[in-house]
Amino acid sequence: MDYNQASLQARTKNGGQIYTGLKPELNSVDDLSTHYSPGIAEPCRVIAEDKQQSKILTQRRNTVAVISDGSAVLGLGNIGPEAALPVMEGKCMLLKKFGNVDGVPIVLDTQDTDELVETIVRLAPTFGGINLEDISAPRCFEIERRVAEKVDIPVFHDDQHGTAMVCLAALINSLKVVEKEKGELKVVISGAGAAGIAIATLLREWGVVSISMTDSKGVVDCGRGDLNDAKTDFCVINAGETLEEALKGADVFIGVSKAGILKPAMIQNMNTDPIIFALANPIPEIMPEEALAAGAKIVATGRSDYPNQINNVLIFPGLFRGLLDSGISVVTPELKLKVAEALASVVENPTAERVIPSVFDERVMVAVSESIPGPSFSPKGREE
Amino acid sequence: MDYNQASLQARTKNGGQIYTGLKPELNSVDDLSTHYSPGIAEPCRVIAEDKQQSKILTQRRNTVAVISDGSAVLGLGNIGPEAALPVMEGKCMLLKKFGNVDGVPIVLDTQDTDELVETIVRLAPTFGGINLEDISAPRCFEIERRVAEKVDIPVFHDDQHGTAMVCLAALINSLKVVEKEKGELKVVISGAGAAGIAIATLLREWGVVSISMTDSKGVVDCGRGDLNDAKTDFCVINAGETLEEALKGADVFIGVSKAGILKPAMIQNMNTDPIIFALANPIPEIMPEEALAAGAKIVATGRSDYPNQINNVLIFPGLFRGLLDSGISVVTPELKLKVAEALASVVENPTAERVIPSVFDERVMVAVSESIPGPSFSPKGREE
Repeated sequence: MDYNQASLQARTKNGGQIYTGLKPELNSVDDLSTHYSPGIAEPCRVIAEDKQQSKILTQRRNTVAVISDGSAVLGLGNIGPEAALPVMEGKCMLLKKFGNVDGVPIVLDTQDTDELVETIVRLAPTFGGINLEDISAPRCFEIERRVAEKVDIPVFHDDQHGTAMVCLAALINSLKVVEKEKGELKVVISGAGAAGIAIATLLREWGVVSISMTDSKGVVDCGRGDLNDAKTDFCVINAGETLEEALKGADVFIGVSKAGILKPAMIQNMNTDPIIFALANPIPEIMPEEALAAGAKIVATGRSDYPNQINNVLIFPGLFRGLLDSGISVVTPELKLKVAEALASVVENPTAERVIPSVFDERVMVAVSESIPGPSFSPKGREE
Repeated sequence: MDYNQASLQARTKNGGQIYTGLKPELNSVDDLSTHYSPGIAEPCRVIAEDKQQSKILTQRRNTVAVISDGSAVLGLGNIGPEAALPVMEGKCMLLKKFGNVDGVPIVLDTQDTDELVETIVRLAPTFGGINLEDISAPRCFEIERRVAEKVDIPVFHDDQHGTAMVCLAALINSLKVVEKEKGELKVVISGAGAAGIAIATLLREWGVVSISMTDSKGVVDCGRGDLNDAKTDFCVINAGETLEEALKGADVFIGVSKAGILKPAMIQNMNTDPIIFALANPIPEIMPEEALAAGAKIVATGRSDYPNQINNVLIFPGLFRGLLDSGISVVTPELKLKVAEALASVVENPTAERVIPSVFDERVMVAVSESIPGPSFSPKGREE
């Protein structure tokens, strides 16, 4: 099946893939008088007295903005806001389908960090949560941090934390298969952008001690003069200069970089039972057949046509479902670990071919959303 | 029926009144691969080559943002963005119901003119049109003008132009009933805010020569030292100081001000067959029974429980339907006149009790949208 042509055909016919649906009937003067003027003034008055009521009486209760500046879209790079809009719409489809969350795509015509922060902060009263998307590193780190400091709703950059949480869930189950302990692992991450840094951060938080990263210039060595703050936080010494050197004796390869850079010989030089997460899309760092032939024990990719698909959709819909229902507005490192563990637990008996559940497994959203506790937790909200 | 309580109950149960609906099915790996990754990259690539394609291949084809800063909401005044959100949602319901346009509510956490302009401009790549809503005068004039200069999609402040166009449509039919000519009319407008100024502007454009305005300080006289630019444009000399004096011998009273300020004695001093549009909501400048008893020939209000409801919903859904279908991005004065005339024409034989069609008259959207010509006009688009 030619997915590109099918995608274009659907959009040529339908325009966008989402629409605005109406909850009330509007067939009579009474309907209009209730749901529009004059009745509509009543929720306005209630919220004017107490802004927090807007999280109950308006779309904020169930609506998340999916916001991008179009600076790092899929593997296409900096293609600008208009061209990023299809991806934001797609993300909103997934929020609804897999989390019953109403998503609103927003693309912004600026790539200036200060302007993005102030614009997103100004939009906050409209939404119950903010999913940042496809914003290039290292800008995305600062943007997420500064926005989160200024608003009272959850802010989540999916390319960072969603990827990291799914990776961790897959790693938790992989370690059960190969019977290794997290504290003794040697992990190499290829790619030091938004996803790579977030994966490294979450693995460290979880308890992995030995993490090396590589970027387009080789190993992120502390001696290099070109490292940004995020990379400096994960720089290493004496780990070699190249990906090949870094991988000698490693237990885990996590690739969020580019097609074909992992060679069979590199896998052959890893520790026993190598774990390979080759997540470049659509063509991974190494194809699964090739990795297995070279001795890999477990292989995961971003693709739906191989086992073990590492896909952010396993996290973000259920995560926002849980955040909206619980009223939690800060996604802490502890919460990320808890959610990753909940996702991992959906696979009851992990095997090399099944370290992560299917995106169509209905237990995923339940496990992820219910792992998020909160004062106003309401199981009913999730079943709406 | 207690509309306030019914409104609050519906929102306590449902939160917002709109939701995000999905056009494609998402039940298989093929569905996901087509409508999300990897197929979604194809429309991105096409739009990256030509941004205008975003108006065909994304939600921009059918989506209008309804944007407010919460500075002038209904009769409630400056209640802020959170409290304004129910009204924006309500507007989006009406866009969909009466125009098949997908509306997205946006409330912004700033009331600074420069910040509003830059924020709305940055949002433009997301939408096919912008409906400004409930922004206080005189800021709204500048904001609309500056945003419209910077974006390539239509920008429309409904409180100004929607109200003006519906008023003009009702006036066109009223003059048929009373058999008067527009060039000989003496019109008095009570209220010199966003709506009043827009009504005066459109009536002048249409051909009304004698227009006096009054505000909270009385007649907008050129000798006053407190007039802003918009009021100065409509100041008069020797028209008296009070509404009562201005109305002597007038043919038309249009009120966009406040409850109860028009007295029966003032109507008795007007010209023959007085036309009274008392549009303050929910309590008009004079109640219809009282106006008719004082000799008014035609009375219109904003209320649904009396004849002749002057309601913006008669214009904005069909207007945006037509703008999106035609690809027209500038709403010119000529276009406003044309649309108002199209709306008036829906009433085939106007009478004193029927100078404007019902909001449930299905011919309204057709007449309004089809009055907007355009190079890419597509009747099919309207029937989607």
